[in-house]
Amino acid sequence: MRRSLPVSDSSAIVEEPRIHKGLAGVVVDTTAISKVNPETNSLLYRGYPVQELAALCSFEQVAYLLWHGELPTEEQLAEFERVERAQRALPVAVRRIIDELPLTAHPMDVLRTAVSVIGASDPRASDDSPEAELEKAIGLYARIPAIVAYDQRRRHGDDVVEPRDDLGYSANFLHMTFGDVPELVVVDAFDVSMILYAEHSFNASTFTTRVITSTLADLYSAVVGGIGALKGPLHGGANEAVMHTFDEVGRADKAAAWLDTALAEKRKIMGFGHRVYKHGDSRVPTMKTSLDALLEHYDRPDLGALYDALETAMTARKNILPNLDYPSGPAYHLMGFDTETFTPLFVASRIVGWTAHIMEQRASNSLIRPLSAYSGHDERHVEG
Amino acid sequence: MRRSLPVSDSSAIVEEPRIHKGLAGVVVDTTAISKVNPETNSLLYRGYPVQELAALCSFEQVAYLLWHGELPTEEQLAEFERVERAQRALPVAVRRIIDELPLTAHPMDVLRTAVSVIGASDPRASDDSPEAELEKAIGLYARIPAIVAYDQRRRHGDDVVEPRDDLGYSANFLHMTFGDVPELVVVDAFDVSMILYAEHSFNASTFTTRVITSTLADLYSAVVGGIGALKGPLHGGANEAVMHTFDEVGRADKAAAWLDTALAEKRKIMGFGHRVYKHGDSRVPTMKTSLDALLEHYDRPDLGALYDALETAMTARKNILPNLDYPSGPAYHLMGFDTETFTPLFVASRIVGWTAHIMEQRASNSLIRPLSAYSGHDERHVEG
Ligand SMILES: CC(C)(COP(=O)(O)OP(=O)(O)OC[C@H]1O[C@@H](n2cnc3c(N)ncnc32)[C@H](O)[C@@H]1OP(=O)(O)O)[C@@H](O)C(=O)NCCC(=O)NCCS
Ligand SMILES: CC(C)(COP(=O)(O)OP(=O)(O)OC[C@H]1O[C@@H](n2cnc3c(N)ncnc32)[C@H](O)[C@@H]1OP(=O)(O)O)[C@@H](O)C(=O)NCCC(=O)NCCS
Repeated sequence: MRRSLPVSDSSAIVEEPRIHKGLAGVVVDTTAISKVNPETNSLLYRGYPVQELAALCSFEQVAYLLWHGELPTEEQLAEFERVERAQRALPVAVRRIIDELPLTAHPMDVLRTAVSVIGASDPRASDDSPEAELEKAIGLYARIPAIVAYDQRRRHGDDVVEPRDDLGYSANFLHMTFGDVPELVVVDAFDVSMILYAEHSFNASTFTTRVITSTLADLYSAVVGGIGALKGPLHGGANEAVMHTFDEVGRADKAAAWLDTALAEKRKIMGFGHRVYKHGDSRVPTMKTSLDALLEHYDRPDLGALYDALETAMTARKNILPNLDYPSGPAYHLMGFDTETFTPLFVASRIVGWTAHIMEQRASNSLIRPLSAYSGHDERHVEG
Repeated sequence: MRRSLPVSDSSAIVEEPRIHKGLAGVVVDTTAISKVNPETNSLLYRGYPVQELAALCSFEQVAYLLWHGELPTEEQLAEFERVERAQRALPVAVRRIIDELPLTAHPMDVLRTAVSVIGASDPRASDDSPEAELEKAIGLYARIPAIVAYDQRRRHGDDVVEPRDDLGYSANFLHMTFGDVPELVVVDAFDVSMILYAEHSFNASTFTTRVITSTLADLYSAVVGGIGALKGPLHGGANEAVMHTFDEVGRADKAAAWLDTALAEKRKIMGFGHRVYKHGDSRVPTMKTSLDALLEHYDRPDLGALYDALETAMTARKNILPNLDYPSGPAYHLMGFDTETFTPLFVASRIVGWTAHIMEQRASNSLIRPLSAYSGHDERHVEG
């Protein structure tokens, strides 16, 4: 096939347009939700450093902050918790549909389907008033834990565990998954992970939700797309992939040799590197502190040594630093989550950031429709 | 809330980055699949003008062309049709799940859910070899008509109609929806619409499928996101919206006054305007010819007059020209499709373009992850 040189399909750019592959460095819009500053290794949610939020707030407070722009007062928090707790049960139709899906289905595919069903079943799906949008966002935030917990339990042949409305978000999530509430150190580590995963500006899945919203599609359609994007191993799927790496490496003293082979095979090392952060991920130290507490609690120095050995080797070889998925993968493993459940946990948290961005996009919308440069066959004609 | 001036979160751009809102004019990547040239009002699929393809080829040939880069030989076409016809039946699990969804669900939500279920049920979902990807693409192309037809029929209380493998794609689609095969003029108009909708470079839904694929998520996750994006009235949802407009206007002699009111209320007139085409949509004349044949066949000069009157008024007032959804909406209406089924018909066609782009993105991937400029609250600290 003959190929012409790239030619623009835009009237504004006549010859050899600059191609922004991966949109690296391209600023698409403003946002007031979070600020990622790779220079200072900092991440602000609505102005607050994420480390402070992780140290001093619950995930519920942070979710409220991301949606409303301000931390809740005590009364606002109580009302918000009341609304969330009232919606924690797994909807019956969703349960029946999950039961139709084979166990070969990835839990992210189950979650994608379940959210699509919730959207299809909501008569207000296309009501895009700010009030309705926020209600739908809180509804998903409240229901996703039950979906994730139910799916992990059915894979083990275990019965559904009903939610408890005397527990906070994280304690209840662990209760629904494991049938009991673990020690505080575990609940805290889980809550910290939820806070750290909640929001990260225009990452690929959040950007997906904004592109979908820009056509004025409904919130559920945007979230379902976000789940699809998060599944990929270059994005949310990396927390699972990290655990597969640990399984593959096996022991700390094998990490350096394993890494040399993997790099020689041009494999990407999951849990390392980031498009925006080049000097380290602002969220890693906080999550690593929680992981350390879990390693001690579960008495797993071997896993801690493996973690350190691979990080040390990767820094020495490539100077590419860990991202949040590197400590969160083993943390979720220690808590008892199946490896395939890790990315759905990321969804449970990021649903807050996605829906905040969906509402922000809708409030100041422009269709997101880029251009491409044609590199295909010259014009030709159908014979006959 | 105090707000700082926009500040970049990119290390490359230090002050007041240029904001590419809507990504207007930004070239994201090259593509060999189609070329949109707004200067010459032309659209090429793999080098062939789309008008020629509509005049001389079947939708099956065009689908093969978009996927493989070349039109099929007679043998290749026969084999391709054999594979497609063998997969036309509605999968039983999908039918059971559709039956769980309320009739208040938009057909696009039903289709989004059904495709998500097909993905969750496919044990090869995460096999991203080119062969597996193409098989999955053809599988969706073959099955979507049964989903769309079944959903329209259940809304009328009608029984499922089994596919006929002695019919071409379009004749069978109409047969499954209406229980019989209409006259050739109708089948032809439908086939032309499928060809014209199949592909259009980096439109919002195709771009969505590429962003999702860029995380290395599976093909079904990307398609489900594409369906979400297409649902929006600024994109595929416009073909439905056009029909609501015709219903609202009612008669040709009311078009000008209706339009004046709508424009005074700052409403967007659905089926007019395009991000890329500014001097008219290359696909409209071909679809208008098919619509004219249908108007004559169904003896509906009133609808033709309404169509012309609104177009004339819109050109006079705003000089904004019709896009493909303007003639396709009334064409689908005349064929007997419910208005809410129009956008699912767009999916049935665009699945070809989406999956061609998914495969192209995967073959030369870079994570699509843009930046945002922060416009939120200054840094502040949690009290207590
Ligand atoms: C996140 C990620 C996609 C960002 O990538 P990006 O900005 O597109 O940058 P690139 O992939 O082009 O990486 C630049 C260079 O660093 C290398 N690199 C980046 N991350 C790497 C990793 N995790 N392992 C090995 N090499 C890596 C690339 O191979 C490339 O090298 P080259 O220039 O010799 O080809 C990438 O770091 C990655 O794939 N990481 C692993 C997956 C992961 O952990 N994702 C979760 C992110 S929160
Ligand atoms: C398709 C569409 C989103 C492209 O829009 P865009 O490139 O983002 O351009 P804008 O919406 O900024 O339009 C530019 C100007 O034309 C006006 N305009 C564009 N399409 C219009 C329409 N269909 N009706 C009324 N005004 C329209 C806008 O209001 C805007 O006017 P302003 O500058 O006074 O604010 C837009 O034309 C539209 O909304 N059309 C209707 C929906 C539709 O048919 N979509 C299917 C597309 S295939």
